[in-house]
Amino acid sequence: MSEQAKKAVVLLSGGLDSSTVLAIAKQQGYQCYALSFDYGQRSLAELNAASAVAKQLGAVEHKLVRFDMGEIGGSALTDHSISVPEQMEEGVPVTYVPARNTVFLSMALGLAEVVEAEAIFIGVNAVDYSGYPDCRPAFIEAFQAMANLATKAGVEGRQIRIETPLMSLTKAQIIDHGITAGLDYGLTVSCYQADEQGRACRVCDSCRLRAQGFVDAGVEDPTRYQD
Amino acid sequence: MSEQAKKAVVLLSGGLDSSTVLAIAKQQGYQCYALSFDYGQRSLAELNAASAVAKQLGAVEHKLVRFDMGEIGGSALTDHSISVPEQMEEGVPVTYVPARNTVFLSMALGLAEVVEAEAIFIGVNAVDYSGYPDCRPAFIEAFQAMANLATKAGVEGRQIRIETPLMSLTKAQIIDHGITAGLDYGLTVSCYQADEQGRACRVCDSCRLRAQGFVDAGVEDPTRYQD
Repeated sequence: MSEQAKKAVVLLSGGLDSSTVLAIAKQQGYQCYALSFDYGQRSLAELNAASAVAKQLGAVEHKLVRFDMGEIGGSALTDHSISVPEQMEEGVPVTYVPARNTVFLSMALGLAEVVEAEAIFIGVNAVDYSGYPDCRPAFIEAFQAMANLATKAGVEGRQIRIETPLMSLTKAQIIDHGITAGLDYGLTVSCYQADEQGRACRVCDSCRLRAQGFVDAGVEDPTRYQD
Repeated sequence: MSEQAKKAVVLLSGGLDSSTVLAIAKQQGYQCYALSFDYGQRSLAELNAASAVAKQLGAVEHKLVRFDMGEIGGSALTDHSISVPEQMEEGVPVTYVPARNTVFLSMALGLAEVVEAEAIFIGVNAVDYSGYPDCRPAFIEAFQAMANLATKAGVEGRQIRIETPLMSLTKAQIIDHGITAGLDYGLTVSCYQADEQGRACRVCDSCRLRAQGFVDAGVEDPTRYQD
């Protein structure tokens, strides 16, 4: 691996989408710095999945930033007194974590400056985006404009590009890309309430979108379920 | 205090600038949610100062978010192997924390959504800004544009305003504002290497800018020094 290799920071939750993004970044020839967050979410199984995926795909580093977003609260994914819904809802869902992608991209921006990465990869998707405002193309464009002004790199005329390779793909297309790029989806965990072994509940929004994706892609579902 | 009172999130480090901002927000009639971060910086004395200032000025809540930015590193303020410089430098200083204001504003945005605040106050300053790219007006404007697209509030047509009351003030003018608003500057800590009792070193950039501010304002310096 050349010292001149281009570098990317890849936001990696250990779920289907972000793991596919890591596979795509790697396939595009980037030295990948995977970045995961432990912000008090329910599914620590996801973090174990992130480690396994980073290892499988040969990320040069896998960094974990811990922070306590429970102090901020306001979402079913960080506030344990709100239950995870089993039905799809209208509008912005209660699983929305306030400003989550903004916070994650900001930390990725910091890491990108430090390791001199030229790109940040994030698995946002406008097709299956489920009503999260910070998954829309307009949000990403505005973040890019802000990032160009926020950083030492920007001051010095180097843009850190925000890359969203999944933006316009269906779940089935995402799975096709991941398989082509060599990702083992059996390692990934998407479930909002996976158990400690990373086995999925089968009933939450995330499980159902994922399962339908494997059906639509015509690929056998490698997900490990609790039942 | 009315339930209809307007609310603001105020980023509070416990230093001179952010403490003044809290005093100004309070004076403008906001119910203030002070937000501080423990990100592995050297000066925990600042966090104690933040608590004291939040109490003195009657913030309705003081929230502390802990996160480990040391995993990202790259600055004298989080990487203990880099020493704090005593001389002013050209360009972007080594005390620059990668993407720090972007990260802090992002978390403030999350809290503002949860408590339904209409404004976020931050003590950035373009006069004494010392070369940090994320203290410039253009950065704040770009963050505002991004925030309008990032949030549930934005989707629903409510803007969360980023307020920068110190942007064009000199240090002496900042001190004048704070004294008018009733802030006890003896509680604040600006020093990059304050001791456990919050006493300042007198020699770092931050100490020297602060001391000169009191001289220029014609106000006795209430700072507690180590010598």
